[in-house]
Amino acid sequence: MTIETLVAGVKPADAAAIAAARARQAQLTKPAGSLGVLEELSVRLAGMHGGMPPAGYARRALIVMAGDHGVAADGVSAYPSEVTAQMLHGFLGGTAAICAIARSCGVRVYVADLGVKGHGIDDPRLMMLNVGRGTQSIARGPAMLREQAQRALERGAEAFARVAYEGVDLFALGEMGIGNTTPASAITAAATGRSAQEICGRGTGIDDARLARKREIVAQAVARVAPDADGVTLLAELGGFEIGGMAGAMLAAAGAGIPVVLDGFIATAAALVAQRLAPQIIEWMIAGHRGAEPGHAHALAHLGLRPLLELDLRLGEGTGAALAMPLVDAAARTLREMATFAEAGVSEAV
Amino acid sequence: MTIETLVAGVKPADAAAIAAARARQAQLTKPAGSLGVLEELSVRLAGMHGGMPPAGYARRALIVMAGDHGVAADGVSAYPSEVTAQMLHGFLGGTAAICAIARSCGVRVYVADLGVKGHGIDDPRLMMLNVGRGTQSIARGPAMLREQAQRALERGAEAFARVAYEGVDLFALGEMGIGNTTPASAITAAATGRSAQEICGRGTGIDDARLARKREIVAQAVARVAPDADGVTLLAELGGFEIGGMAGAMLAAAGAGIPVVLDGFIATAAALVAQRLAPQIIEWMIAGHRGAEPGHAHALAHLGLRPLLELDLRLGEGTGAALAMPLVDAAARTLREMATFAEAGVSEAV
Repeated sequence: MTIETLVAGVKPADAAAIAAARARQAQLTKPAGSLGVLEELSVRLAGMHGGMPPAGYARRALIVMAGDHGVAADGVSAYPSEVTAQMLHGFLGGTAAICAIARSCGVRVYVADLGVKGHGIDDPRLMMLNVGRGTQSIARGPAMLREQAQRALERGAEAFARVAYEGVDLFALGEMGIGNTTPASAITAAATGRSAQEICGRGTGIDDARLARKREIVAQAVARVAPDADGVTLLAELGGFEIGGMAGAMLAAAGAGIPVVLDGFIATAAALVAQRLAPQIIEWMIAGHRGAEPGHAHALAHLGLRPLLELDLRLGEGTGAALAMPLVDAAARTLREMATFAEAGVSEAV
Repeated sequence: MTIETLVAGVKPADAAAIAAARARQAQLTKPAGSLGVLEELSVRLAGMHGGMPPAGYARRALIVMAGDHGVAADGVSAYPSEVTAQMLHGFLGGTAAICAIARSCGVRVYVADLGVKGHGIDDPRLMMLNVGRGTQSIARGPAMLREQAQRALERGAEAFARVAYEGVDLFALGEMGIGNTTPASAITAAATGRSAQEICGRGTGIDDARLARKREIVAQAVARVAPDADGVTLLAELGGFEIGGMAGAMLAAAGAGIPVVLDGFIATAAALVAQRLAPQIIEWMIAGHRGAEPGHAHALAHLGLRPLLELDLRLGEGTGAALAMPLVDAAARTLREMATFAEAGVSEAV
């Protein structure tokens, strides 16, 4: 599937369904507005589904996309790149944080290699979608070739297609990639127009010296990119393979009419890439969690999304998105399953 | 069960289990602290259970306790008292907000009448624990007799006993009672030492005139109560029957070693009553949600609890607590189910 086809597939939400859902929420047996952000979320979901959301969102799925980053060798991370490959075993073995949390939230977890340096894993459950053995360092030039950026987007869409074949009502992306808060910071700075100073944070927990180096690298990398650069350029210059894969999967999911729950800072950077390619994709996105990374708040504000959770997570892997999925279902169920004042014979406010 | 027995049953959490859980969290395959508030929650849960939390918290239960309030006739609410009884049908029929949300979060919902004015419902699923047909108005004197306050606490404990008989790993209370943000505000003001001005809010949505009247009533009622009044006095002077029932159920649950997830402002006022009776009960409490009602933030700060959710809910019924239950389970599962760095052969931070 070409990127043009993916972009053209993302349709606006259904305005009539939105209006009908808003009218119904106002008649349900509760004081108007008393379900807070769940009410507006239920209305948005109706717009995405063109009517009532599916019962129970029973088929919840999440792909953890992994990739390595040349910039990890430039002293911006607390962990060595080898950890990316090591963690693939944890995702496949069910012992990583996202696996424990996904079991709790009724979410199927898929694992995809979009650009890990090397791992030697031979497991049919690992989606082999490798675009390159780690990116080049954005400290010295573009992260990848333009052709690789396009391929990462397309392979992300392929990954979604596999999930869709097995059935999905609610979808999310997670990621693993040592060093990837640096490219995510660069993409966020470029897409929002904010400075590296405002965007960069400590990621998984770096010290002051590494943070200063990270800011310097991000500022220099962003300076190479024109403010109105297209999405493929943003990704090629500043990105990561797993970030491109996530953006491609988001486009494919939205095109298939499936709501996309955003995870942490890295997944939100992928959403910024997807937005640059197809601005209307925002209507299909739900912000799951806002973490401590300063750029995350700026990215969500740029997307115009309010997060459902704020739990100080800074892990990625899709943890924040998975935790938000039961809330999305709960919002939908209030719209589907509650009685109106008229149906219930309950007195309204005087 | 007498109140003295209930209070004596609340034991402190297990310090050795807390230390062991904290040590294990530090070795799990994730950057230290990267699961944010879920990490500390998992440690607290281990303390409550004296070791690993139960797998999946499969038996989640919530009781919606209903009661009417004399003060509702004094112009402090947007709805007439009749709505309390009308809503009982919705809870039993599965069409209220809490029913839709509880299905989403895997929670069994029980319904108890602690002090509704009248309803004529003959349904074996409704727990008949009525202590009186609505309280007296706190605008003119004590809400109830001291003996009624004791009975409300005891009947709340009975309600928990029924839930425990059917099996429970994780417990919460919700409520329904037109006018009950007024007694909850009075209890919160008395327990925290804050003024009626600071505590009172618009409840389900009252206008400026009603808000002014509510503040006046709360200030006068609180002035009748000594700052060091015991829990039964707080409840008798300022409370509601459903608030007493919730406090009693909290004491019984903590005594049985079951974590209690707090809901909104009214349930948190019940927690303040329970705390006045048994200060160590805080170790068994988890704050589910912080709503917009200004007194709620003061109450949670007084209890020393950080809420898991902030979704602008202002409904009660247990909605905020039910929505938080999957998060409690997720926190527990990270402790139970994740591998350590040593088990997984993953490199640690350099």
